[in-house]
Amino acid sequence: MRILYHLPLCPFSRKIRLIMAEKRLSFELMTEAVWKKRDEFLSMNPAGTVPVLVEETGLAICDSYAISEYLEEAYPDTLLMGRTLAERVEVRRLVAWFDDKFNREITRNLLFEKMFKRLFGNSNPNAQALREGYQNIKFHLDYIAYLAENRVWLAGNNLSIADFAAAAHLSSLDYIGDINWDKYPMVKDWYVRIKSRPSFRALLNDRVSGVVPPKYYADLDF
Amino acid sequence: MRILYHLPLCPFSRKIRLIMAEKRLSFELMTEAVWKKRDEFLSMNPAGTVPVLVEETGLAICDSYAISEYLEEAYPDTLLMGRTLAERVEVRRLVAWFDDKFNREITRNLLFEKMFKRLFGNSNPNAQALREGYQNIKFHLDYIAYLAENRVWLAGNNLSIADFAAAAHLSSLDYIGDINWDKYPMVKDWYVRIKSRPSFRALLNDRVSGVVPPKYYADLDF
Repeated sequence: MRILYHLPLCPFSRKIRLIMAEKRLSFELMTEAVWKKRDEFLSMNPAGTVPVLVEETGLAICDSYAISEYLEEAYPDTLLMGRTLAERVEVRRLVAWFDDKFNREITRNLLFEKMFKRLFGNSNPNAQALREGYQNIKFHLDYIAYLAENRVWLAGNNLSIADFAAAAHLSSLDYIGDINWDKYPMVKDWYVRIKSRPSFRALLNDRVSGVVPPKYYADLDF
Repeated sequence: MRILYHLPLCPFSRKIRLIMAEKRLSFELMTEAVWKKRDEFLSMNPAGTVPVLVEETGLAICDSYAISEYLEEAYPDTLLMGRTLAERVEVRRLVAWFDDKFNREITRNLLFEKMFKRLFGNSNPNAQALREGYQNIKFHLDYIAYLAENRVWLAGNNLSIADFAAAAHLSSLDYIGDINWDKYPMVKDWYVRIKSRPSFRALLNDRVSGVVPPKYYADLDF
């Protein structure tokens, strides 16, 4: 059986889970406590990060960028990156937007500070980081609203990994109650469409001990 | 004429310049002072980062990940990402290693702090960042030495964008004198092979006003 090493609230792992579910690829989820730096895990992925996908052949694929490109090449029946060069350019621009810029400006400042920092042996959340995260999220939600208002899906007419990258970050932040949906109805409309997909169900069932998500977290009609 | 918006010491721009030169694609270089947040540039790339490639058709491709994947798909005569799925997995793992991990642990701590921070209106280099950068670089040079000792090129038997990503970061750090080549002969051997390629010449001719590189920076036999 295919194995995906992940962490429940890791947006990069969530993006890969969504892509694999959309491509109807079965896999077993293994939670990897990356802060423990397990030797067997580091020998597969020297960077020590999740997600890592291990195929039944034994091929280990590290890093969410490499995994998403691999899945698109190895399992092309359901294409999630667009077909023309121009479509693929836009999908990848937005994936970089969410996994690089959004991650650096928001996810690291909020999710990492609140949920993961202590596990890595660091101190309490940094107040300056939290302030920056809450400031930046407004700009980013405005940008997603702009895309959602002008396009069927974030990158254009077709559902793509740009939607999954965005939804992965937002869903993890939603678990800790950091998304004010009522202020962004266009973002909420788009998110409801993604959240209602069968591929999303497993993410909504994730629970992390000690942290209870808001009531609407797993609600499809919130 | 194709245009590449770049900054002379930006490793992400350098990686794309190397790939385009290896694929024998002609282009005009335009220096973009990203900290000025020029409206026309932001309308092409809302993230406000370089590199951005503009094709003669007008298609603008933003982000070095999207550009490198685009170049491989649009100009497949010279393939630089490997041919088999397993080769491509390893090339992309290493590109992520250098553009994400190496960048975060070294390039941002040294190059950004010393060269770019002031341009963005920030203060002097942060001493803690510099300490971390100099500490991290040893681990990373050991890892590159390990790869160079066990493989023909960093990702395996073939030259790939993994080599260009690594060389782009190292060459920018070399410009500010932060690489101690004598301590890492295997890394130096590999770098001499990359540095001697015609595609590298333009990078070695870059000069940034006010900062003189070490004498050996452009020397092919250093």
